[in-house]
Amino acid sequence: MESLPHCETLLLEKQGPTLFVTINRPDVRNAMSLQMVAELSTVFSEIESDLQIRAVVVRGSGGHFCAGGDIKDMAGARSQKSAEGEADPFYRLNRAFGQMIQQVNESSKVVIAITEGAVMGGGFGLACVSDVALAGPTSKFGMPETSLGVIPAQIAPFVVERIGLTQARRLALLGLRINADEACRLGIVHQAAESENELEEMLTQVLDRIRHCAPVATAETKALLHRVGHEAMSGLLDSAAEKFAEAIRGSEGAEGTMAFMQKRPPAWAESNE
Amino acid sequence: MESLPHCETLLLEKQGPTLFVTINRPDVRNAMSLQMVAELSTVFSEIESDLQIRAVVVRGSGGHFCAGGDIKDMAGARSQKSAEGEADPFYRLNRAFGQMIQQVNESSKVVIAITEGAVMGGGFGLACVSDVALAGPTSKFGMPETSLGVIPAQIAPFVVERIGLTQARRLALLGLRINADEACRLGIVHQAAESENELEEMLTQVLDRIRHCAPVATAETKALLHRVGHEAMSGLLDSAAEKFAEAIRGSEGAEGTMAFMQKRPPAWAESNE
Amino acid sequence: MESLPHCETLLLEKQGPTLFVTINRPDVRNAMSLQMVAELSTVFSEIESDLQIRAVVVRGSGGHFCAGGDIKDMAGARSQKSAEGEADPFYRLNRAFGQMIQQVNESSKVVIAITEGAVMGGGFGLACVSDVALAGPTSKFGMPETSLGVIPAQIAPFVVERIGLTQARRLALLGLRINADEACRLGIVHQAAESENELEEMLTQVLDRIRHCAPVATAETKALLHRVGHEAMSGLLDSAAEKFAEAIRGSEGAEGTMAFMQKRPPAWAESNE
Repeated sequence: MESLPHCETLLLEKQGPTLFVTINRPDVRNAMSLQMVAELSTVFSEIESDLQIRAVVVRGSGGHFCAGGDIKDMAGARSQKSAEGEADPFYRLNRAFGQMIQQVNESSKVVIAITEGAVMGGGFGLACVSDVALAGPTSKFGMPETSLGVIPAQIAPFVVERIGLTQARRLALLGLRINADEACRLGIVHQAAESENELEEMLTQVLDRIRHCAPVATAETKALLHRVGHEAMSGLLDSAAEKFAEAIRGSEGAEGTMAFMQKRPPAWAESNE
Repeated sequence: MESLPHCETLLLEKQGPTLFVTINRPDVRNAMSLQMVAELSTVFSEIESDLQIRAVVVRGSGGHFCAGGDIKDMAGARSQKSAEGEADPFYRLNRAFGQMIQQVNESSKVVIAITEGAVMGGGFGLACVSDVALAGPTSKFGMPETSLGVIPAQIAPFVVERIGLTQARRLALLGLRINADEACRLGIVHQAAESENELEEMLTQVLDRIRHCAPVATAETKALLHRVGHEAMSGLLDSAAEKFAEAIRGSEGAEGTMAFMQKRPPAWAESNE
Repeated sequence: MESLPHCETLLLEKQGPTLFVTINRPDVRNAMSLQMVAELSTVFSEIESDLQIRAVVVRGSGGHFCAGGDIKDMAGARSQKSAEGEADPFYRLNRAFGQMIQQVNESSKVVIAITEGAVMGGGFGLACVSDVALAGPTSKFGMPETSLGVIPAQIAPFVVERIGLTQARRLALLGLRINADEACRLGIVHQAAESENELEEMLTQVLDRIRHCAPVATAETKALLHRVGHEAMSGLLDSAAEKFAEAIRGSEGAEGTMAFMQKRPPAWAESNE
């Protein structure tokens, strides 16, 4: 990706091997519009084959991560008539969001969510598909859908994958709103910072760790993790052993082995930042 | 359900949208008899189609939740001969219990377990299928089966679903007995109260949260959560988007949207309690 | 098993119903060699049918559990050419390790890991398949593979089974190194001791609990736990009810029931230690 795609709802900034994606609709607490869904999907598609980018940091502007679905889009869907043979506009609106977070979930990049303020509904779902989630002290998490008469349709399944059925059923069925400490205890986020400074420091450390890990090996490892539980263990381990042999015979494996013996950092750790 | 079914082992009381089910065999620490299994199953069957009931609170009388299987039933099964072509009485006894907790697990109502004193064997299994479990300070949890030469056959699978294989294998294989704090840390219960007062307060808050959530949307959400991991994610999200469109176009979706715009509580929050 | 197999990389000692397996290559922090993999596999195969042994304690000599794969084996695999039609030596090396930990995972014995010092790579994987893991205060856990340009191929899947995808993705993708307290919080180990003394005390208590549980019932319970999530719940519960009936009609069930009524410990608790 030589140039970053043009986006109206997102700010994009590349710093070395990291792409910073800032959700930028602060006047509506970064509510997830159809356009934002499309732009996030485009960004993640375009960087998929960009070997320079290893990490994507997703956060919100104005002190909030994302407050959930956009009300104007909802009103629009209600007034629309579906053309014959077409899906219900509400179906399409809802499903498009789910497709985007499935894509983020399976991105070959390391995805880091920095949560602050409102992390509700769709925002909650987005946080739940990150590889590393760091919460700021103002974060509030929840699925308010049932209190509005609807269901957290595309979100709840990813919440179950994130924290298990036991905790997901309580959060979803009570429409609870929880803070950063409880979110960390439940595994929604991995670390909860007590201040903005600590949050930025945690992010710096995460990005530093990513720099020390070989990019292709990291992407292969992420793909492997996502397969667990979806296929028989023996076959998965057979396939993983093949990937291991490829990795150690590949250029990263050669460089990693060499660097280890020469007691120097491997080439990929000398970031272009 | 105009009238509640007649039960000998359970006390039933309806308060607004909540059915309180009290296991009532305090002289045997509420041991789970065949009759109790049958009565619990009847109650959950009958309320399934009762739209007035949204929540079921299960607790025990006399300071205990449930101490496990009934010894008299065991003795009875041992003395019985199975008629030709019939299953072993021990098989039937055991399987009937499992069928009942599967039913409770998948009930469309929000099931709340209030655990106190002995929460052992079958009682432990029952607590593990609740949507919300609140522990009193006297609670003791465990699967003592292997120390008696038998296996936690119908219980252990629900314990794995509740807290994962890692913690379940330690608890089951060591026949451990743990207290409320550890049960909360492992996810068997969601909250551990330090006093009876705090326990009742927690329950009041849970019931209050349930009142704010739309009943049909809540039941649809619970059904959705139970499907995660049992079907491919994409198909599940397709189906969930259909349910979303139905919900938002249905009467709860209309009322929820209206109430939100009019800054008033939705009709379902004005409980008949 | 009348006599224990001869091993060069392991120290074996039988104490009553417990087999102590000590990984014994302290000069290389107990790095996992091909020979060690083969010897561990032999030991677990041989004890599988030995009814006298109920528990296996795996630990390392010299203050470390196991620091990961052996570098000499790696160098050896690199210099080897695979004969025609043969798998890549790296594939075989890697896959053999995975086969061994699958075997340990499904051993009918209760497997206890005592982790100290380095618990890295293959050592981390081995700890993740134990039934009970107790961490000493010096323990350091991690998957450094991606920082060396390779992937935690046989390990990562067991880490996902151990602690879930959410925590596994952070640990694996950042190549993190964590201490005993965090490992306990994540569920890699079940208890973290603050001193060597406390660690030995915890082990004594675990072995004591195992002595109180009927050996065959324990093995049946472990096998049952491993089936959860891999087959439909109803069929699993049917099969479990059959096992229950067998257990209660078997000799352990008879002895357990009798001992319970006579208020004495069952025969299996009178260990030959």
